[in-house]
Amino acid sequence: MKLSTGFWQTYKETPSDAEIPSHQLMIRAGLIHKSAAGIYNYLPIGYRVIRKVEQIVREEMDRAGCFEILMSVVTPGELWQETKRWEKMGGEMLKFKDKADRDLCISPTNEEAVTDIFRKTVKSYKNMPVTLYQINTKFRDEIRPRFGLMRGREFTMKDAYSFDLDKEGMDKSYQNLYQAYCAILERIGLNYSIVEADAGNMASAGAQTHEFQVLAGTGEDTLIVSEDGSYGANIEKAQTKRAELNLDKEVKELKKIETKNKSSIEDVCTFLNVPQSYALKSLVYEWIKGEESHFVLVLLLGDDQLNEVKLKNFLGADHVQACGEKALRDLGLVKGYIGPFHLPSNLTVFMDAQIDEDASFIVGAGEKDFHFQGFNPKRDLKDYKKVDLRLSKAGDLTLDGKIVKESRGIEVGHIFQLGDLYTKAMNASIQGPDGKPLYPMMGCYGIGVTRIVGAAIEQHHDDKGIIWPKAITPYQVYLAVIAKTDEVKNLGEEIYQKLISAGFEVILDDRNQGPGFKFKDAELLGIPLRVVLGERDFKSKGTLEIVERRSGEKVEVKPEELAARLTELWDKCQ
Amino acid sequence: MKLSTGFWQTYKETPSDAEIPSHQLMIRAGLIHKSAAGIYNYLPIGYRVIRKVEQIVREEMDRAGCFEILMSVVTPGELWQETKRWEKMGGEMLKFKDKADRDLCISPTNEEAVTDIFRKTVKSYKNMPVTLYQINTKFRDEIRPRFGLMRGREFTMKDAYSFDLDKEGMDKSYQNLYQAYCAILERIGLNYSIVEADAGNMASAGAQTHEFQVLAGTGEDTLIVSEDGSYGANIEKAQTKRAELNLDKEVKELKKIETKNKSSIEDVCTFLNVPQSYALKSLVYEWIKGEESHFVLVLLLGDDQLNEVKLKNFLGADHVQACGEKALRDLGLVKGYIGPFHLPSNLTVFMDAQIDEDASFIVGAGEKDFHFQGFNPKRDLKDYKKVDLRLSKAGDLTLDGKIVKESRGIEVGHIFQLGDLYTKAMNASIQGPDGKPLYPMMGCYGIGVTRIVGAAIEQHHDDKGIIWPKAITPYQVYLAVIAKTDEVKNLGEEIYQKLISAGFEVILDDRNQGPGFKFKDAELLGIPLRVVLGERDFKSKGTLEIVERRSGEKVEVKPEELAARLTELWDKCQ
Repeated sequence: MKLSTGFWQTYKETPSDAEIPSHQLMIRAGLIHKSAAGIYNYLPIGYRVIRKVEQIVREEMDRAGCFEILMSVVTPGELWQETKRWEKMGGEMLKFKDKADRDLCISPTNEEAVTDIFRKTVKSYKNMPVTLYQINTKFRDEIRPRFGLMRGREFTMKDAYSFDLDKEGMDKSYQNLYQAYCAILERIGLNYSIVEADAGNMASAGAQTHEFQVLAGTGEDTLIVSEDGSYGANIEKAQTKRAELNLDKEVKELKKIETKNKSSIEDVCTFLNVPQSYALKSLVYEWIKGEESHFVLVLLLGDDQLNEVKLKNFLGADHVQACGEKALRDLGLVKGYIGPFHLPSNLTVFMDAQIDEDASFIVGAGEKDFHFQGFNPKRDLKDYKKVDLRLSKAGDLTLDGKIVKESRGIEVGHIFQLGDLYTKAMNASIQGPDGKPLYPMMGCYGIGVTRIVGAAIEQHHDDKGIIWPKAITPYQVYLAVIAKTDEVKNLGEEIYQKLISAGFEVILDDRNQGPGFKFKDAELLGIPLRVVLGERDFKSKGTLEIVERRSGEKVEVKPEELAARLTELWDKCQ
Repeated sequence: MKLSTGFWQTYKETPSDAEIPSHQLMIRAGLIHKSAAGIYNYLPIGYRVIRKVEQIVREEMDRAGCFEILMSVVTPGELWQETKRWEKMGGEMLKFKDKADRDLCISPTNEEAVTDIFRKTVKSYKNMPVTLYQINTKFRDEIRPRFGLMRGREFTMKDAYSFDLDKEGMDKSYQNLYQAYCAILERIGLNYSIVEADAGNMASAGAQTHEFQVLAGTGEDTLIVSEDGSYGANIEKAQTKRAELNLDKEVKELKKIETKNKSSIEDVCTFLNVPQSYALKSLVYEWIKGEESHFVLVLLLGDDQLNEVKLKNFLGADHVQACGEKALRDLGLVKGYIGPFHLPSNLTVFMDAQIDEDASFIVGAGEKDFHFQGFNPKRDLKDYKKVDLRLSKAGDLTLDGKIVKESRGIEVGHIFQLGDLYTKAMNASIQGPDGKPLYPMMGCYGIGVTRIVGAAIEQHHDDKGIIWPKAITPYQVYLAVIAKTDEVKNLGEEIYQKLISAGFEVILDDRNQGPGFKFKDAELLGIPLRVVLGERDFKSKGTLEIVERRSGEKVEVKPEELAARLTELWDKCQ
């Protein structure tokens, strides 16, 4: 592209709603244009990046033996009603009626649609297994779209769905796609972790699910990863144990003490001059499933936090929420002094698995301004369940004893074993090898094409701008011509044409602007190799300059060496 | 693709809602899958065809110097409100609200969105001209979606938008895209006409607009084309004159005659034993613009039809409709006997331009069971306007005297000069060469990607199935292996791999089926070249057979000649 006649505009100012580097840089480098909250248009240079990501994804999916299809963006409500997800999907699914008053939505995901295609096409085990994928536009009506392409409402996603005869086949397909995802992220050149993830409500028992997380400080997800890399899990899912634990091991007498105006664990433990792990915190939660709602008391070590996802999954709830002051009052509980005493009879008690039932603890007394010391669970509590409910944290140990740390990640891929949930709900049975009908076992596999672009920038930028990984850079060479005479201008044009003929993807900056302006734009845009044809250097020394964007290293070359040196430097690029 | 492990299923039965060959064949050949009325999923082989069409379109647009972008599928209502199209677009635009109660729609077209991108990016004449395009999903909520991909609700379209400094520049961009569209349709191998089209409400005065029509008997559009090809127009737009016209040239006395129960032109003229062109038909129409509504009387030669589009455009109406019986009664008119007599004062009279005002005509008398003979417009009618309002028909003459015929077409492309309608409405001014602001002149250019696939099949099929034009065939070679022994099966696999290595796109039919089954599927799918490796022929003669799908011609070849002969035959394919 020649910039003199191209369609590109950079911006100095950072948009006020852009909080993270990738969002700021994509807007400033003229790659995307905001259409509405969380909805973007992709401009020429930005769209080249997206198409490169799409092509890498496509090639790796094809290599893995998957078949590309394209499902409609708008899907009929009746398919979603078959699996009862029409109601369950919640507000993120944009639903509407057409002129004939039929229910439609813009697909946020396509399990129903692909199962409908499958059941129409495949009737026998002979045509199994099969994995279908598409690269398509999705829409999720996020309440707070933010971070540009990272959490947009409209986005491009590759979603794939595997169908197998049995669990063994599903595991094999899952492994196949797992490998394909690794290949995709490695080709793109991203530093990523694969972590165990929460399976949520979709899972059948024993279903595997993994997230592919691009590591970046701005990531929205917290990951718990062992220092040797052998264990990784999203914090929602992570199961670890406390390292050295400071406990009051001596069984003491239960003793009520006044703790006036000391309603937090911190205040109580400071007052009594003991570590917070000597106390138990008592949390009251409401959990909702369908029309029903119940209350639970959760006991945790004083310096632990509750993992709400674990609580929700353990209860099989649709939703859990901490009780507010009013709800506590209605239950007859006193905020700040709740403990395993004076509890209403309909309150189930859960104790976190890390609590040693033989130790003594400080707990709320169930009445204002009082706590108990010497609470010994085994002795003092009759009816409770021990469950893993705490949130993992840095310094914990994996179940096999390795120290873990926390890091931040951007979830760019998620793979998932669905089992026969959808094939059963949609009656997508096929004839099995024994002549009897069977319900195929499915897996689903998503990778966020547009999110990968944002994640790549989060990982690859500096204070001057983007630094594209070579696999997805919109162009390979940014040729800046700084010329006054027609002679040098024409030479610039000639070099541009020659580099294109030699197979390079080149931007020619032939705009009527000075070197400072051009170099700033080049650095902001982040093309790996910049070539400068400057009138002065060329006339005095007969040379051009090549600048490597990532390292800033410069070399001077004669025009006749240019293509060879560029090839050499390109090969060395990340 | 190997069919033994592939994802493909053909069908014997024709779906009941599939009225035309392309729809029937795309379903039967397993290329598409219906998701809802007018909404389709594209299956692996069908999607290959669509991607080939997309790629040809992309290459020709790039060659024409246009820049590819991708605009959001969902666009905010506020952009449409700037041009007042939020209300005007009518029911085909799918509107809805998001969770934050903001207006959104699924884009049926993108003039507003692209003008918004343009005004943000381009500020000066120095960055002009520019043409942007996208290949994307569109949605139009047609009341009666039909004909498969031809008139679907969700479809893939390439839409382009040019921005120029002035009318001259717009003409140049228009010509550039006109040529690009010719190149696209020629590369795909379609027989098409370019015709003048109705500009509708969008046009500025003198705006050019052309349709690219693929010729096919099942086309929804009627085209009026001169036999020498120098003139072509959509019948909505066509302006022609009657060839030899049988008129009653003698000015006669106005005479009322009884025509009891003869309320049609046909009955009256048969009764009086004169040609229908001796009579004038009187049509009463209501026309609506905004809140207002008026009535007109249109006089046409007895054997002519009204072109409602011409009437609507002449009146600048939003909508015109023939008056029903009730409306006629309310106006004091008698159905079947209406004429230019006893008219209410608020009725404007239009006379078609082909009516000779010096001749005499039979007209309704304005009272039941009576007509007038000898009606001479010049003498008997005071207040009327002469306007071209008739529908052209085969046998007419162009304005320069050439005979025209009618043909049927499928509109696959439409190009359009918009002028400064949108840039003005959206205040997208730029700095002109003289330092003053100017409103760029736009053109818009649409080509229906998925519709082209349907149109190609309408033009290229026989009673056995599809016959793909080589440019968009999903595969080049259909290799059917009819083998009993592993030796020949393995040879088939080997030939498959060799042909792929030689650069052919090949389907291997290695299914456990007989030759009849495989050949039927091959013919239905319509791959240009079929190669048959049959156990018997190969063992007895050492040969394979190549069958050309279009001609049915067969040649026998030795395995070692296969690739060379296929290349030769491929080069000869259309």
